[in-house]
Amino acid sequence: MKKIHFQWPIRVYYEDTDAGGIVYYANYLKFLERARTEWLRSLGIEQDSWLDHNRGFVVRQVELDLRQAVKFNAELTVTVTVEQLKRASIRFTQQVLGAEGQVHCTAMVKAACVDLTAMRAVAIPAPIFDSIQAAVQTTQ
Amino acid sequence: MKKIHFQWPIRVYYEDTDAGGIVYYANYLKFLERARTEWLRSLGIEQDSWLDHNRGFVVRQVELDLRQAVKFNAELTVTVTVEQLKRASIRFTQQVLGAEGQVHCTAMVKAACVDLTAMRAVAIPAPIFDSIQAAVQTTQ
Amino acid sequence: MKKIHFQWPIRVYYEDTDAGGIVYYANYLKFLERARTEWLRSLGIEQDSWLDHNRGFVVRQVELDLRQAVKFNAELTVTVTVEQLKRASIRFTQQVLGAEGQVHCTAMVKAACVDLTAMRAVAIPAPIFDSIQAAVQTTQ
Amino acid sequence: MKKIHFQWPIRVYYEDTDAGGIVYYANYLKFLERARTEWLRSLGIEQDSWLDHNRGFVVRQVELDLRQAVKFNAELTVTVTVEQLKRASIRFTQQVLGAEGQVHCTAMVKAACVDLTAMRAVAIPAPIFDSIQAAVQTTQ
Repeated sequence: MKKIHFQWPIRVYYEDTDAGGIVYYANYLKFLERARTEWLRSLGIEQDSWLDHNRGFVVRQVELDLRQAVKFNAELTVTVTVEQLKRASIRFTQQVLGAEGQVHCTAMVKAACVDLTAMRAVAIPAPIFDSIQAAVQTTQ
Repeated sequence: MKKIHFQWPIRVYYEDTDAGGIVYYANYLKFLERARTEWLRSLGIEQDSWLDHNRGFVVRQVELDLRQAVKFNAELTVTVTVEQLKRASIRFTQQVLGAEGQVHCTAMVKAACVDLTAMRAVAIPAPIFDSIQAAVQTTQ
Repeated sequence: MKKIHFQWPIRVYYEDTDAGGIVYYANYLKFLERARTEWLRSLGIEQDSWLDHNRGFVVRQVELDLRQAVKFNAELTVTVTVEQLKRASIRFTQQVLGAEGQVHCTAMVKAACVDLTAMRAVAIPAPIFDSIQAAVQTTQ
Repeated sequence: MKKIHFQWPIRVYYEDTDAGGIVYYANYLKFLERARTEWLRSLGIEQDSWLDHNRGFVVRQVELDLRQAVKFNAELTVTVTVEQLKRASIRFTQQVLGAEGQVHCTAMVKAACVDLTAMRAVAIPAPIFDSIQAAVQTTQ
């Protein structure tokens, strides 16, 4: 895996688990998005101002590889690595890691910038694109 | 409890449970809302057309009395009874019942009609108010 | 796509949507699991009895291809097709379809049978394996 | 309101919102539980070890008073105040506060200690009871 651009801690609460005693599989997608949101925030990009202009990132593709199940109360780290930045989309690899560094989940996520009214792909607003590009180049 | 105005069946899936092996307490609120939504639909009221006009019901008050826990895979019935219909709000009592009629949850929910842009209370649109009033009077 | 083995209707409620006005991406995984659970039920397989013996299906791999976003109140159909049945796992393709048959989501899901205490793969219990195998052969 | 015993910060993500553009009402219950869990942790009480002994807190009663809606991306503080500690249950008042201290939600939550196998109320284990009692007395 390439250089990690960002890491975010996540604690597992009751809400995240299911009757099998482990994190419910859909909730990994929540963890992955929290980390992407905090990565954007670390670059000074707040998505609510963006939402006011009817722009948002919409996930188009996900690949999840779930290994060791995560239990209630676990302390996780979620990583964010930008694999490819294009005019209207970003492709990430992300991992959910346990307290001893074990890999619970490896993911590929492709998110597209969309006009939320027309629901069609549009270019990532230039200041946001530039911030992301600068950040990715710096950490490579 | 007064006459029940509507009933809706709910099946408990993995997503609804937690590591305690039972339905996670927040998810009762989802079940209650599904039943209220289907009750409105049974009156010919579709909330998406309403949402397009920036109107929506927002819950202002909830009282939950949780008795016997609900397990994975249970078949539930959720009831809807209108206790009070006012110009800008509705107060419901609702119950979550098990397959043998046992009461898992009794709830009071007060929902207000709001302008979702300004986020302030507004009168329930007249055609919707009239449909609800007619339905409540019929079944009382 | 091969023959569909099962279909299940899903209604989109407020709980399923996000501030972008569309179904939150993690919730597709809930819809997909509801359909798989109901498909098992249609074969006479109830997962709670299974859970009592510390056995459960745990998802190991997911591929999601999200196309047209789904809005609040939509009526969906979720399909289940068994692509491969092995001793300890099943690989499915599934789709989330709109009311006009449009494809909102195509998914590949691989679920493994696990011992939930030891959290390791085990063979699918024979009566369950046989029911699934019979059902898949019949509909092919 | 009495002295606050604990505070916990919560960030609002897409997963927490609905198509109305605000936090979905059931999710306040998640926020409230995260704060209670972190309050227990601050006293050295980890609920997973407890879960291994088939003990858990199960919520029996909730009263929610929802005022100003919370928007995507908001930074919240959730408070925990113990109102009453009994042998087998705890009654809390909690608030969800905005960045300017505005009250979004006031809640009363009553949680009982239960044997998760038999699903009946049992005394809170003595060391846990004592830690809670000591903490409450100190901060009063």
